[in-house]
Amino acid sequence: MRTVRVGVVGAGNMGADHVSTLHRWVSGAEVTRVADIDADRAAAIAAGVPGARSTDDAHALIDDPEVDAVVIASHDTTHADLAVAAVRAGKPVMCEKPLAPTVEECVRVVREERRAGAGLISLGFMRRFDPAYVELRSAVASGTCGAPLLVHCVSRGVSSAPGCTDEFSVTGSAIHEFDTVPWLLDSPITEVSWHAPRPTSAVTGLRDPQLMLLHTADGALTTVETFLNAGYGYDVRCEVAGERGTLALADPARLVSDATRARSTAYPADWRPRFADAYRLELQAWIDAVAQGRPSPLATAYDGLVASVVAEAVIASMKDGGRTIAVRVPEL
Amino acid sequence: MRTVRVGVVGAGNMGADHVSTLHRWVSGAEVTRVADIDADRAAAIAAGVPGARSTDDAHALIDDPEVDAVVIASHDTTHADLAVAAVRAGKPVMCEKPLAPTVEECVRVVREERRAGAGLISLGFMRRFDPAYVELRSAVASGTCGAPLLVHCVSRGVSSAPGCTDEFSVTGSAIHEFDTVPWLLDSPITEVSWHAPRPTSAVTGLRDPQLMLLHTADGALTTVETFLNAGYGYDVRCEVAGERGTLALADPARLVSDATRARSTAYPADWRPRFADAYRLELQAWIDAVAQGRPSPLATAYDGLVASVVAEAVIASMKDGGRTIAVRVPEL
Amino acid sequence: MRTVRVGVVGAGNMGADHVSTLHRWVSGAEVTRVADIDADRAAAIAAGVPGARSTDDAHALIDDPEVDAVVIASHDTTHADLAVAAVRAGKPVMCEKPLAPTVEECVRVVREERRAGAGLISLGFMRRFDPAYVELRSAVASGTCGAPLLVHCVSRGVSSAPGCTDEFSVTGSAIHEFDTVPWLLDSPITEVSWHAPRPTSAVTGLRDPQLMLLHTADGALTTVETFLNAGYGYDVRCEVAGERGTLALADPARLVSDATRARSTAYPADWRPRFADAYRLELQAWIDAVAQGRPSPLATAYDGLVASVVAEAVIASMKDGGRTIAVRVPEL
Amino acid sequence: MRTVRVGVVGAGNMGADHVSTLHRWVSGAEVTRVADIDADRAAAIAAGVPGARSTDDAHALIDDPEVDAVVIASHDTTHADLAVAAVRAGKPVMCEKPLAPTVEECVRVVREERRAGAGLISLGFMRRFDPAYVELRSAVASGTCGAPLLVHCVSRGVSSAPGCTDEFSVTGSAIHEFDTVPWLLDSPITEVSWHAPRPTSAVTGLRDPQLMLLHTADGALTTVETFLNAGYGYDVRCEVAGERGTLALADPARLVSDATRARSTAYPADWRPRFADAYRLELQAWIDAVAQGRPSPLATAYDGLVASVVAEAVIASMKDGGRTIAVRVPEL
Repeated sequence: MRTVRVGVVGAGNMGADHVSTLHRWVSGAEVTRVADIDADRAAAIAAGVPGARSTDDAHALIDDPEVDAVVIASHDTTHADLAVAAVRAGKPVMCEKPLAPTVEECVRVVREERRAGAGLISLGFMRRFDPAYVELRSAVASGTCGAPLLVHCVSRGVSSAPGCTDEFSVTGSAIHEFDTVPWLLDSPITEVSWHAPRPTSAVTGLRDPQLMLLHTADGALTTVETFLNAGYGYDVRCEVAGERGTLALADPARLVSDATRARSTAYPADWRPRFADAYRLELQAWIDAVAQGRPSPLATAYDGLVASVVAEAVIASMKDGGRTIAVRVPEL
Repeated sequence: MRTVRVGVVGAGNMGADHVSTLHRWVSGAEVTRVADIDADRAAAIAAGVPGARSTDDAHALIDDPEVDAVVIASHDTTHADLAVAAVRAGKPVMCEKPLAPTVEECVRVVREERRAGAGLISLGFMRRFDPAYVELRSAVASGTCGAPLLVHCVSRGVSSAPGCTDEFSVTGSAIHEFDTVPWLLDSPITEVSWHAPRPTSAVTGLRDPQLMLLHTADGALTTVETFLNAGYGYDVRCEVAGERGTLALADPARLVSDATRARSTAYPADWRPRFADAYRLELQAWIDAVAQGRPSPLATAYDGLVASVVAEAVIASMKDGGRTIAVRVPEL
Repeated sequence: MRTVRVGVVGAGNMGADHVSTLHRWVSGAEVTRVADIDADRAAAIAAGVPGARSTDDAHALIDDPEVDAVVIASHDTTHADLAVAAVRAGKPVMCEKPLAPTVEECVRVVREERRAGAGLISLGFMRRFDPAYVELRSAVASGTCGAPLLVHCVSRGVSSAPGCTDEFSVTGSAIHEFDTVPWLLDSPITEVSWHAPRPTSAVTGLRDPQLMLLHTADGALTTVETFLNAGYGYDVRCEVAGERGTLALADPARLVSDATRARSTAYPADWRPRFADAYRLELQAWIDAVAQGRPSPLATAYDGLVASVVAEAVIASMKDGGRTIAVRVPEL
Repeated sequence: MRTVRVGVVGAGNMGADHVSTLHRWVSGAEVTRVADIDADRAAAIAAGVPGARSTDDAHALIDDPEVDAVVIASHDTTHADLAVAAVRAGKPVMCEKPLAPTVEECVRVVREERRAGAGLISLGFMRRFDPAYVELRSAVASGTCGAPLLVHCVSRGVSSAPGCTDEFSVTGSAIHEFDTVPWLLDSPITEVSWHAPRPTSAVTGLRDPQLMLLHTADGALTTVETFLNAGYGYDVRCEVAGERGTLALADPARLVSDATRARSTAYPADWRPRFADAYRLELQAWIDAVAQGRPSPLATAYDGLVASVVAEAVIASMKDGGRTIAVRVPEL
């Protein structure tokens, strides 16, 4: 089985993590190129991998004959064009979510992909590879809890990034649930509505937390709480309540500690410790598929489009007083 | 301190429980009379308490000079008239929820009480005396989690009673949350909406589970899930998420068991084991107040009215496609 | 059913707690007398109970015609004489553990009791009334975990009292396990040995923590860890491992809190919150038995003797390099 | 960085797992040879790895120029000779525990290794790479719980293999703790004793469960329970109690399920799901060290010798009525 030579576009936190994961932990992968508009940053990241070279030209990386497959982890606004370029070059691409900032652009990418080579684009919805989510999905599918009726999702973080907008809770955080819930239930989201308490005083001028209701075609109802400034830790929860019982993600902490009048488990400060294994397993699955010429088991460009359609519907509800909005995926 | 002689109206499950609790566990109380429209049932329950006599006439019980205070645990439709009769007799009364089946009747009772002797009626919202809820309220008030923003409540049971209606999830189950949440947050409910997935197939023709959204005057948003036919057990949860952290009721199980590939804690089949202590503490607090001539620390008739107003608003939303409904407590 | 008039000897923490519990929470009991060698302390405690009078003469209290039953919560060295006096007065007595500081004295009390009126003495091993221990025992007896093979007990506290001795871990702390384990397993302790790590540096000159091994007649092996200066909280654990599974006490916390990167439950600073309910239920069971002239369901004087015999055997092992010592209960 | 070509000796469960892990999950490794005395079994396992060839001659594998490094997972009695052969061939070797069945043989291997090329042998004590144990050790070292005083270890399995002996609980199960505890505490075991309840009736003629006490040079006392036929699941626990608090491994389950009156998490049937990640991380760490010519971070041959010395001391105690036995590592 040949080694897959990977070019990584974007040398920010996400890209640097992917470079490191591919290099250190993924069997059968070799990072050969790193691109970033900031050439120094690209060079710094490439320096950590023997044999890797850097560039400030993402398109050069895509066309490089020493690159078999491309990871896109650059700014959201660049995803669509780079993905299309990779597809046209006939190279498999693993694009971080979102596929593109707007539904229109997502549609364009999916159309281009269908024309040029269906299945070349994989989308980085890594929760599909998180062992706990995988176990949850498998248990739901096996009927352990009976037919699902309610799903309760919670995504909390310590604090939002500067300049965070009301929409980011939807497009940057809840979008994971927009992909995960249909994948868990094997049923698409059909209707959504948006709700919120008064905002936390931790940040001025931001609607945080938010609460979204999602109806899926199977009749289940999902609540999604996003709370970017929850303060106490990074905490992702999911419970599926069905006709016979429930299934929920367990507290992922590895240690229990007794000290100063309390028994406690620790929360991480951000998503990295929580989903490090999911990213590793996602990249390994992608590399294995590329190496063996099999279809990618990751989320597809179309999945990315659908998640963006849901996000736009939720934002429409946010701007229309919490009205219920139907989800309509455009014809392709 | 004198012993309080209590007459209990209603010898069904709830009344029989109160008789037994007052007799066995409450210091300073003596059950002297038991009334039920079914004279045999009244007699059977009274037979368990040395010195207690039975009757099929609730009004005779209320007027009996050997009755200092009255517990009303008869059919919901009788609560209002009996409570008014007790008030007119100048006797403290502990009335099971609801105060009355309609808001109009609740209003009438509250008006009668104000006229005849404010403070004579206590309402049996026993969660206010459950040690876990009391600890939760106290921790919220002390600022442990910061100002509350979201409350997530879940009330699940094994199965609904025969003939259960869609409204019962609201008036019989969620009504506890309609009292508990304002008491926890120290803020009244101002707006509500009603939502639901497809119903469970466990029962035909019943909207179960249901999901209600409650807005309180402090700006917090509460989700209330009721699931009468959850199947797996009686399970009441409550989490308050505030600006600095969260507080939630812990799993109340006393044992952890390892067997057949699982570590587990048990759920009770119904509310009795879960809230036995709450009922005992509620009755003890009521008897102490009566004995010492102090104001009752239980929920008031007005609290019962307010809970019924919220229930009617939620039912209005149920019948109007989930529209948001404002909660308006009538002028008295 | 008549009210039982109780005289409480000892107005320290334990006695004051019993007075308050009997007065506020126990149905059918009335505290009429409080005795303490410190007359002011007795008066202060009696002042909290309408109708109660105080004395500095414990024997006068025992002989008082207004005292139907006696609680002994005075200094350990006084237990034996007071218990014997109460027995001779023909009055039921609830004596705090230990029955007496030495096995010899315990033997004397048991003999006196047999002569004067068997069954008058109850011993305050309150864990037998703790709802969690009761549930554990019942589950063990029902065969849930199969025949017991191993029991792991842990008793940790925040800090030891000034002047605490090595023996106190055995006679003041582990003695609860010496009663509880045979009661749980329905099998007496036959052999013991004592072990320890280096002592904690929190206290100078005290062997703390300690580890005891107990063999019971059924063949099970029990480990008992006592750690008086564990620092973090009051924490009592018990796990029974049998041929088919295990049963253990669950964390008794009522709330779960998320804050500052941790999910946590709280430990109390001492035994009071943990065992308040056990004391209440123990006293209620004792009062009920006294009122109805039934045999007391509490631990007996003989149980107290047996626990003291085990304690002496453990101390003998402590003083003999951890040698295994057989437990021999004297002939009576 | 060059790919490390690995030859795996032993194609039983353990060897097959290592082949699969190296092939699928370890970056920088390539399985080139598989040896087993059963040629068919070797061929079957090799068939799963493109490019791998099989043999029934372990020594031929060790000497094969296409093998850079050797994994030994064959029968325990073969470990010593194969490890020595690999050392003589100048090749790094990862040998499953035990290094050899007797202390004498372990001594021989360590001496041979010192002569031929110190550091070539790594020992497969994979718990050192389990993320939970790693986190535990790091937290202990950072002083989170204060200086350790007590360690409580529990190793339970569903059932023992046919022909299992009393000694196997020590040499096959507790031996993990004999390595892990000194590694956790950074202090060697100095004294041990062996204890047991009556055996489970699940298996005839086997002393199971067993309880061992270990004293370490730092003064801490460790309890090790092994229970091969615990029946309910594979369950490994470890708690360190120190002067300021405790640290313990959390329940590793990923899901919580509510069903049929119980909330539960699942136990695996054997060690594979529990330690799959530990094996992967161990092999990755070993391959990284080999590829980069760095010292192996795994347990050493000397660690394996020490663990065997402890095991022999425990067995000596088992055969001598639980007497305390000093641990003496032979001079080399």
